[in-house]
Amino acid sequence: MFSYELLHIDKHTGARAGVFHTPHGDIETPIFMPVGTAATVKSLLPSTLHELGTQILLSNTYHLYLRPGSDIVRRAGGLHKFMNWNKPILTDSGGFQVFSLGDLRKITDDGVTFSSHIDGSKHVFTPESVMATEHDLGADVIMAFDECSTYGCSKEYARSAMNRTHKWLDRCAKAHTNGVQMLFPIIQGNMFADLRVESVKYVRDYAQCGIAVGGLSVGEPDQIMYEMLDVIRPYLPDNMPRYLMGVGTPDYILEGIERGIDMCDCVLPTRIARNGTAMTTHGKVVVRNGCYREDFSPLDEECDCYCCKNFSKAYLRHLVNCKEILAGELLSIHNIRFLLKLVEGAREAIKQDAFTDYKREFYAKYYKK
Amino acid sequence: MFSYELLHIDKHTGARAGVFHTPHGDIETPIFMPVGTAATVKSLLPSTLHELGTQILLSNTYHLYLRPGSDIVRRAGGLHKFMNWNKPILTDSGGFQVFSLGDLRKITDDGVTFSSHIDGSKHVFTPESVMATEHDLGADVIMAFDECSTYGCSKEYARSAMNRTHKWLDRCAKAHTNGVQMLFPIIQGNMFADLRVESVKYVRDYAQCGIAVGGLSVGEPDQIMYEMLDVIRPYLPDNMPRYLMGVGTPDYILEGIERGIDMCDCVLPTRIARNGTAMTTHGKVVVRNGCYREDFSPLDEECDCYCCKNFSKAYLRHLVNCKEILAGELLSIHNIRFLLKLVEGAREAIKQDAFTDYKREFYAKYYKK
Repeated sequence: MFSYELLHIDKHTGARAGVFHTPHGDIETPIFMPVGTAATVKSLLPSTLHELGTQILLSNTYHLYLRPGSDIVRRAGGLHKFMNWNKPILTDSGGFQVFSLGDLRKITDDGVTFSSHIDGSKHVFTPESVMATEHDLGADVIMAFDECSTYGCSKEYARSAMNRTHKWLDRCAKAHTNGVQMLFPIIQGNMFADLRVESVKYVRDYAQCGIAVGGLSVGEPDQIMYEMLDVIRPYLPDNMPRYLMGVGTPDYILEGIERGIDMCDCVLPTRIARNGTAMTTHGKVVVRNGCYREDFSPLDEECDCYCCKNFSKAYLRHLVNCKEILAGELLSIHNIRFLLKLVEGAREAIKQDAFTDYKREFYAKYYKK
Repeated sequence: MFSYELLHIDKHTGARAGVFHTPHGDIETPIFMPVGTAATVKSLLPSTLHELGTQILLSNTYHLYLRPGSDIVRRAGGLHKFMNWNKPILTDSGGFQVFSLGDLRKITDDGVTFSSHIDGSKHVFTPESVMATEHDLGADVIMAFDECSTYGCSKEYARSAMNRTHKWLDRCAKAHTNGVQMLFPIIQGNMFADLRVESVKYVRDYAQCGIAVGGLSVGEPDQIMYEMLDVIRPYLPDNMPRYLMGVGTPDYILEGIERGIDMCDCVLPTRIARNGTAMTTHGKVVVRNGCYREDFSPLDEECDCYCCKNFSKAYLRHLVNCKEILAGELLSIHNIRFLLKLVEGAREAIKQDAFTDYKREFYAKYYKK
């Protein structure tokens, strides 16, 4: 039911173009995954996401576990049916959220006890309980329960979190026996090259058709992130997709792809959209700015999205100014389309061994200021 | 450019089915107009409004005058282009909002001085300035500047406000000479039958292809509103659409249609949607209620909208619970579709002289509780 087809490797960089076959359809890689935290990509209809060319969505186990509860989603017939999305879905494990959103968390080797950020109620996540929750949700790809240690922690702590992640992975693999969902193990190791190598060597044995890199893009300097990707690269399996978690800026996406990454996700395009900011061919645009008051040109002349085809910057600025919901909606449409076009372009460039040029040309326009 | 074609009169009630021809297309009447206050029907893409069968939108002059400013809309090429809506638009005159939203208003025979509800800045609306603003906006139908006296005011005050409205209408008509937009005069007179008759007799002389009833549905008992519609009815011109302002509950819409009304508008369907409430064939549904936690059936089995075709009450409840934007969006889609279907059904029933049965059957289901 799951397989990865490697179509082409860019001969200058090693960037990969491929197809990830899943039960809910094929995903052309490299791909960006919009995030639908609570079983909705905020403000967007599924039909709109289809029109944008979205191939796979990510949804958050932590949030769905708390609301509406994974039992409800299971009884609804699974997440695809519940949220009316018939293409592939990936659920994270809740590990990251437990550490970033949950209060009063207590980590033991058995699992994590935490208080809900919504009502303070107490909950326990273990590798086994997380697998059960992800089974209820029924996504195509499910992530192993891991501990993402914070940037800046000691090497000693990073090692113990990594070791715990490895033990939890073993328990996840044992608990995941349904055979219809694909478990992605997660490489941890914080910003320590030797730990990263140790981790990739450990977790790749659990990878059947997909492996993930966690704990990056958490505040570290760009070069450190790139270095971590470089050190693990020789050890990554070739015959499956590699997923770089939580990455959504154009440079991180392209640098990841250049380092052999096939999948990534981030709330960034939709979050900054609701905040009135757009990513365009010529860099970031803060739509609220007074200079757009009478700018009747589209947000991005080179974009083919519904927002850019039909509305002016002056209109978008008006909506942002009035705090109209449609502002975040139209900018979300644009920003998602922008990142999907970015990876589409990367995919085509890779097939023509032209990824380096593609990246350089993109950077020249986007980061010119 | 404007004309009204009377297709059929229900022989039992006198309810009318017709077509209102405008520069941006034909409107089948009776019709409900969704409200796009700030040049956006909150949270809905224009493409979604098209799919719902929306034939005409209302937008608010007061809001657009303040933000972004009617000069911006004019320079954008008019409201149709600015908000990407190529079907008919009607703009109100701002009269109602000046009285309900503006602070520190001062009314003289010349016009109204008020402070913006946004930043407290001082502004003056006169019949001439309102016509200029509505010309800038460029809607198909523009409303005359009127004073809507509050429910419960003295007859003396109601009369003076009515007289002022009549004088302002005269000035609006003189100031409106562009020949491409249709000015609708407004009948006032508060809840006083003799004033209403006096008003309709006065303003109908200004009506070329459309006349409106203002100052109803402002807090008065239902029966008083119906009585006001009954008393003016014999004096209404037959050869043009009659617009009942600010009406959006199913009963008000149907009672209006029964009394010869062709057009109505209200923020109700979208406002209650954002509040988590739906209008359905079987009455109002407060989606947040716990009883829908595991209700995997659609909101309204008899509805053909995107929300009802694709989502369950359990999903909608989850979205409302999580304060997700998509909740208000999907419920807005449903509620607008619900009212558009209500008037579509009325139109068909009228053509078959079956409006009375249609209304009775609707009431039996909707108000059965």
